[in-house]
Amino acid sequence: MEQISANKAFGGTQGVYRHASSATGTDMTFSVYVPPHEEGARLPVVWYLSGLTCSHANVTEKGEYRQACADLGLIFVAPDTSPRGEGVPDDPEGAYDFGLGAGFYVDATRPPYADHYAMWSYVTQELPALVAEHFPVDMERQGITGHSMGGHGALTIGLTHSDRFKSVSAFAPIVAPGQVPWGQKALAGYLGDDRALWRKHDAVALIEDGARVPALLVDQGDADPFLAEQLRPELLEQACAAAGIDLTLRLQPGYDHSYYFISTFMADHLRWHAARLT
Amino acid sequence: MEQISANKAFGGTQGVYRHASSATGTDMTFSVYVPPHEEGARLPVVWYLSGLTCSHANVTEKGEYRQACADLGLIFVAPDTSPRGEGVPDDPEGAYDFGLGAGFYVDATRPPYADHYAMWSYVTQELPALVAEHFPVDMERQGITGHSMGGHGALTIGLTHSDRFKSVSAFAPIVAPGQVPWGQKALAGYLGDDRALWRKHDAVALIEDGARVPALLVDQGDADPFLAEQLRPELLEQACAAAGIDLTLRLQPGYDHSYYFISTFMADHLRWHAARLT
Repeated sequence: MEQISANKAFGGTQGVYRHASSATGTDMTFSVYVPPHEEGARLPVVWYLSGLTCSHANVTEKGEYRQACADLGLIFVAPDTSPRGEGVPDDPEGAYDFGLGAGFYVDATRPPYADHYAMWSYVTQELPALVAEHFPVDMERQGITGHSMGGHGALTIGLTHSDRFKSVSAFAPIVAPGQVPWGQKALAGYLGDDRALWRKHDAVALIEDGARVPALLVDQGDADPFLAEQLRPELLEQACAAAGIDLTLRLQPGYDHSYYFISTFMADHLRWHAARLT
Repeated sequence: MEQISANKAFGGTQGVYRHASSATGTDMTFSVYVPPHEEGARLPVVWYLSGLTCSHANVTEKGEYRQACADLGLIFVAPDTSPRGEGVPDDPEGAYDFGLGAGFYVDATRPPYADHYAMWSYVTQELPALVAEHFPVDMERQGITGHSMGGHGALTIGLTHSDRFKSVSAFAPIVAPGQVPWGQKALAGYLGDDRALWRKHDAVALIEDGARVPALLVDQGDADPFLAEQLRPELLEQACAAAGIDLTLRLQPGYDHSYYFISTFMADHLRWHAARLT
């Protein structure tokens, strides 16, 4: 693991790191914020999964999470959203919603994507092992969140690994990719047309199929241009109601899909995670 | 004035605007954050001047000022750092520290820069009139701050217009451009070789020549790579001590010159301004 940069911020260190990933067969870049802490302490960690077109850099620069992480004693990890580099296939037409920057947190099974697009394994196995080795994290106290496609990732990973993640939240997540255009394109492209295989990567379907977490926090702007067609939080609301999952869904008036929305509610989410991790 | 974007953030609106500037003879872009406020209220305003290579966008995306502005009821305005566009001359060698992104908050008198580089007039006259016309500002309650080259701008403008600005602070400012390489290159390039003309654009010289403000707040990282050669806060410290200016100079251990440093202390500065403006 190579350190690309380290900057002191809010008493802690914002680092950016690169390593050769065996899951993706590429170099991968991620960021970690370590708040001020006592020597030898092990801290709870919140994973943040980013949305379409993003790398680790968007939330690192615009997410405004460091003040809250410093106050609450949380480590914050932001992975990339796809493999990148020479030989990594992109969307055939260069679209923003598939391929580079759009790994959708699945392990692709279809050629030519299967060779590199293994973001599920990367985010759930390889990167946690690397982070546990190099940073003062307490892996018994993990939470996960994310935005849009990354909210989809946070919900599906949190529901699948509910033993591992004690807290799960999302900003404007894609809650039912099998029912919306972004998700249908991605799941068909990475996994093929058998929709039964999509259900493990669809938060609403996972809940319908029995996955459970005690509680979820979701913020969603009501001026989000993707709300009605791609995000559809009402589907999550219905699934949680039927399953008895304590969903706090907040429709935030006037907020859109940008980091201006995310940064506004970031501290709220981190406090919600900290309440379950500390 | 044309609105380029408007995003709800922390209960208020982060806007970006463009207008045809008569001072620079170009289009100019700037950002304004208006916090939540009562209908009809007029709010104090803090001007933030950016550093070398920056536009309005750097602080708007990375400055982490909106939470504090919302809490304190402050409007936050971020101008660009130079004219831009076709016909605007740049540094002959394309260097980062002169020309585009490096207007140094002076009115250039030397060709070919005199035609467009009028950042002093732009920031002190034209833009305030525009902001007063279009936003709910109380122009009797203005503060000014900035970073690096923009810290130089905030100090020189604040010292020159001490009747107008009730609060002046800076992050890692160039305090004595006449004595450091960045400033010597810029002042010679924009104003010519007569160093007597530089003194109105040099905070330390202005104080030596009699300019006064009641108090200054300056934060400076001690791991800033530009500290010893370009920034030299000890020169401001000496000038303020001799002049009886109440300077709070905080050397922040481990912090560098980046927005990770600025964002860490942004809320402190805004509280300091609010205490003098509200």
